[in-house]
Amino acid sequence: MALFTSDNVTGACPEVMDALIKANSGVASSYGNDKWSSNLQKKFSEIFETNVIIFPATSGTASNSLALSVLSPVFGKIYCHELSHINTDECGAPEFFTGGAKLIPMRGPDGKITAKEFSESIRGTGNVHLTQPAVISITQSCETGTVYQLEEISAISEIAHAQGLKVHMDGARFANAVASLNVSPAEMTWKSGIDVLSFGGTKNGCLAAEAIVFFKPELVGNFPYLHKRSGHLISKMRFVSAQLKAYLSNDVWLRNARHANTMASLLSKGLAAVPDIKLVHPTQANEIFVSLPNPIVKHLNDKGYEVNHDELDGKAARFVAAWNTEEKDIDKLLKTIAKK
Amino acid sequence: MALFTSDNVTGACPEVMDALIKANSGVASSYGNDKWSSNLQKKFSEIFETNVIIFPATSGTASNSLALSVLSPVFGKIYCHELSHINTDECGAPEFFTGGAKLIPMRGPDGKITAKEFSESIRGTGNVHLTQPAVISITQSCETGTVYQLEEISAISEIAHAQGLKVHMDGARFANAVASLNVSPAEMTWKSGIDVLSFGGTKNGCLAAEAIVFFKPELVGNFPYLHKRSGHLISKMRFVSAQLKAYLSNDVWLRNARHANTMASLLSKGLAAVPDIKLVHPTQANEIFVSLPNPIVKHLNDKGYEVNHDELDGKAARFVAAWNTEEKDIDKLLKTIAKK
Amino acid sequence: MALFTSDNVTGACPEVMDALIKANSGVASSYGNDKWSSNLQKKFSEIFETNVIIFPATSGTASNSLALSVLSPVFGKIYCHELSHINTDECGAPEFFTGGAKLIPMRGPDGKITAKEFSESIRGTGNVHLTQPAVISITQSCETGTVYQLEEISAISEIAHAQGLKVHMDGARFANAVASLNVSPAEMTWKSGIDVLSFGGTKNGCLAAEAIVFFKPELVGNFPYLHKRSGHLISKMRFVSAQLKAYLSNDVWLRNARHANTMASLLSKGLAAVPDIKLVHPTQANEIFVSLPNPIVKHLNDKGYEVNHDELDGKAARFVAAWNTEEKDIDKLLKTIAKK
Amino acid sequence: MALFTSDNVTGACPEVMDALIKANSGVASSYGNDKWSSNLQKKFSEIFETNVIIFPATSGTASNSLALSVLSPVFGKIYCHELSHINTDECGAPEFFTGGAKLIPMRGPDGKITAKEFSESIRGTGNVHLTQPAVISITQSCETGTVYQLEEISAISEIAHAQGLKVHMDGARFANAVASLNVSPAEMTWKSGIDVLSFGGTKNGCLAAEAIVFFKPELVGNFPYLHKRSGHLISKMRFVSAQLKAYLSNDVWLRNARHANTMASLLSKGLAAVPDIKLVHPTQANEIFVSLPNPIVKHLNDKGYEVNHDELDGKAARFVAAWNTEEKDIDKLLKTIAKK
Repeated sequence: MALFTSDNVTGACPEVMDALIKANSGVASSYGNDKWSSNLQKKFSEIFETNVIIFPATSGTASNSLALSVLSPVFGKIYCHELSHINTDECGAPEFFTGGAKLIPMRGPDGKITAKEFSESIRGTGNVHLTQPAVISITQSCETGTVYQLEEISAISEIAHAQGLKVHMDGARFANAVASLNVSPAEMTWKSGIDVLSFGGTKNGCLAAEAIVFFKPELVGNFPYLHKRSGHLISKMRFVSAQLKAYLSNDVWLRNARHANTMASLLSKGLAAVPDIKLVHPTQANEIFVSLPNPIVKHLNDKGYEVNHDELDGKAARFVAAWNTEEKDIDKLLKTIAKK
Repeated sequence: MALFTSDNVTGACPEVMDALIKANSGVASSYGNDKWSSNLQKKFSEIFETNVIIFPATSGTASNSLALSVLSPVFGKIYCHELSHINTDECGAPEFFTGGAKLIPMRGPDGKITAKEFSESIRGTGNVHLTQPAVISITQSCETGTVYQLEEISAISEIAHAQGLKVHMDGARFANAVASLNVSPAEMTWKSGIDVLSFGGTKNGCLAAEAIVFFKPELVGNFPYLHKRSGHLISKMRFVSAQLKAYLSNDVWLRNARHANTMASLLSKGLAAVPDIKLVHPTQANEIFVSLPNPIVKHLNDKGYEVNHDELDGKAARFVAAWNTEEKDIDKLLKTIAKK
Repeated sequence: MALFTSDNVTGACPEVMDALIKANSGVASSYGNDKWSSNLQKKFSEIFETNVIIFPATSGTASNSLALSVLSPVFGKIYCHELSHINTDECGAPEFFTGGAKLIPMRGPDGKITAKEFSESIRGTGNVHLTQPAVISITQSCETGTVYQLEEISAISEIAHAQGLKVHMDGARFANAVASLNVSPAEMTWKSGIDVLSFGGTKNGCLAAEAIVFFKPELVGNFPYLHKRSGHLISKMRFVSAQLKAYLSNDVWLRNARHANTMASLLSKGLAAVPDIKLVHPTQANEIFVSLPNPIVKHLNDKGYEVNHDELDGKAARFVAAWNTEEKDIDKLLKTIAKK
Repeated sequence: MALFTSDNVTGACPEVMDALIKANSGVASSYGNDKWSSNLQKKFSEIFETNVIIFPATSGTASNSLALSVLSPVFGKIYCHELSHINTDECGAPEFFTGGAKLIPMRGPDGKITAKEFSESIRGTGNVHLTQPAVISITQSCETGTVYQLEEISAISEIAHAQGLKVHMDGARFANAVASLNVSPAEMTWKSGIDVLSFGGTKNGCLAAEAIVFFKPELVGNFPYLHKRSGHLISKMRFVSAQLKAYLSNDVWLRNARHANTMASLLSKGLAAVPDIKLVHPTQANEIFVSLPNPIVKHLNDKGYEVNHDELDGKAARFVAAWNTEEKDIDKLLKTIAKK
């Protein structure tokens, strides 16, 4: 049966799996010195319409933490939303990778940081007693299923850059946000002031494939060493690069994301139509958050749906549509609820 | 053409690739809460003839460093050979993961730590000015292509345990050592005093699959949190677990290793028969170290062999046979040398 | 002229300076193996009416961070008030010493954590994706000049212990709180559930003398090694121990604190009587927080008072009375304000 | 009785104690914003005949580790002698402060690194798998009581700088080396290529006073933040600065060191004249290393001398002369030995 627990319960899409199988042929230099990995730099640069430098990774936690570790000093402040994955779901990985940076949680509505709150939070620069403002990290699409508008990103970036901070985007669901806004990857990143992007592939059709994308070569700094010493420079890198290559080719990534978003929209409307169920956040990408009466939760779990009612601190239940969610899965879920 | 640069230039063996493809079907709970991952605990316990607790990883560097991080305090001493991978090739990952432990390099012949040198090196326990003896890490098969005998492992373990140290084995080429000694995995590990093993699959037929194996449940401690916060608890864990399951089934891992060892033995004899070429270490697993005159190196590199003459600090050239090395590849290499 | 910027602008009181001079005689074993240091264990045990284990330090930041580093794992959560010194004024020292623990800021009124807010904030125990609840740290007297009542401390400790957390007290102004509550040191610490105390001497009459006080021997753990490797085990320890010995003898510490509190009370009343000046928090120890119109701030600073209006994020100006503040200093300050 | 265990068993010399007493008067801004601390910058610049930037500290371990933490990346290699204090006696403080840098022990005779060994040890620059050459640290006078000649320092510095490494000097006994070589502080440091110096005062007449001295302003970098977050920016800094000021005035530091060296020379000759006692290293500063038959050790310890026969790994016993060692103390020691 289809689960809506998360988009990481799915497998890989056919194009990605085919690429993996094809990559498993002959010898290839290790640690990224292979043709798949070098081609990938070109592919990403095409997609982002500028020369980028990218490094593959196999988990979103690694991708975020590695990016932050090159952007923040050990005594840095990393501004983020209090609901952000880096703040709540990575068991302190950002603190580990940065050597002790401090995450500063903000509380904007619907999981999004507001320029105003961010601006008011920056202080202490140059005061040796205080951790130093270093980075702001925004998640796009964000942990509540909402999406930052381009002008919201730009407003945050401008404040950050004016104060000497760097701007990081956690793009675990990057494709869903691009599809939702119907903008170009360039517009949603460097053209809006993003310095470094954690680009996600795993949740949207890969097996395990993420990438750290640098839009400014001068920010790469010591990244290659930090990458290696964290154990995330894997030896047979071609197998990660091959996934990303296929994912980015022929609009596979956008096709998958558009489909997931469409399914989420359908499900969102279906759920909102149920008496006693209310949307907690607007559904703008592939995640839906609803207040769900406990009897419905229990009923769904009895039927095997693994609804995690503790998501977001007990305030809402989450349903996630994926690249391979089918309409009939949604129908079945809604009917199960209706039968309660 | 076949390369002998490393065993990580190869792809995955058919059984592993088939398992990966099969695992890509339907939904599965993430982060290791899937059937492949739970079955894996049982599989490893069978192989090692005792109940073990294992955690998958995707790189050897991660596997080693994670294991060490749970065994050593931040002010610990980790005894190792000066040529060990953890000391020379992981860009300080053990120091990173442990929070600053100190690696104590030892200098035994042929890349192997001797019980005598180890015993004499332990000192300072309880002296607050000194880093504290915590762990010894041995590599099996080791970085010079040699293999510890069971009694050598036991001798080291006994010293370690008598002094309150833990014993770690870097088993990046574990299968090659088991095949070489023709002993059981149990005999070469916990029966010889190994506490925690970094079990390697990547070099011997997997795409990216390693495992940290705990022989004593009480040593697991905080490992799950350390695992997660290092970014190595990947979400679609089934794809790593499926590799390891196939690798450990039907003796695939031993078949692959035996083949690689046999090919290495063949190549070793062939190289030793060449005037001007001398074995630097005995060939006991799948790696061969020879002193190679520069003209031969140049000739081989002109022919595309990517001989890394800087291996082991310029003292020897390394040739590595893998699970898929063929006799004709060896013939061709030897003929190329002969033509010089 | 007298400053009210902080109590750390003062020197040492005569008894402490005399002890320092007397300690400068003859040889003494280093690193705490001297008679001053061993006597100190006894002295602290007397003061606290129980056997304690103490370690001297020379800064409050060190004392807090060292205490936390032995109480929290690297992936731990340390609950604290958002205004706490460890959260705002130590440039990330707790994160550094703990290896990356996460401080969880709480927002109770008057700088004090409420049991309710604390209780509701604890979550995620055992969930590998989340940093793990480990410690709560309260400041007594706290950063707003208020003081926790014994029952408030007990309520917090009970919640903490019931959930497996440890309780730390930042006692940079410990003496002022004891004097304010007129309770025994034992009552305000271990009898109320405190596990480890950072005991401050510097602000209340020492030159540089703090102590980490363990009320439970089993919590000391690796502290001696963490102490040494942080550079805070100073070689001529007798000079720190001698200060603390004199400070704790003949009620010097309480006499100093009582005087400071009395002076603060006097000043608080004087300030509150000025039209346009309002107390922001009740004055319960030796710190006074008032909203101060900018013209008064400017006037005071013109007269050399170094009023730091940015204290507490621009919300209040702070005046601090010390062990040697005199009534005439207060009169002069109030007259200066009146003349505006 | 006089001890020869270490120079840190002594107290402070009269000039330093007087300065401390004088500093204990009136208010002073905290955290180094006082007149003693600002004057100190000037004083150090005079002594070193160039503009330096200095930061006070209260322990040698802190001074060394803080200096290294600003010179080495987290994945850096710090070359040092295997007997160096940073490698053997600081419980891993350099690893802690740097976030995991690796100390590379070298084995030159008499505790001194040779240019040749150092030169041959540098490798791996730019190779992402290897920790990166970052710093060389030499101790002057060094841990065996010997002293580097100016040309030896220069030779090492030239190699380091040519390869992009920084040069650190552990000057815990800096004064003794200056006195021994009879050169200027400038000649022995920046004129010989030293980038950053850990300047020691504690062992030679202060209570607890060290300084990190930057000869190149551009190397200071984030030092002030690293200083604060390690807990070593103490609040009443005037009391450390006052010690250093007095120590550096009127040649107190050199007078103390010259005296200690003279006494050491006397004792060295006396010991060498005893049958069965042999000098293990030449005596060039204030430390003497001799092979001492166990019966003599026992006899001395019976008489209360606290001879630490485990010094230098059991290979030699150490005797240290200090600023206040008297000839009669030496006579008494030698007579005690003679009576055996």
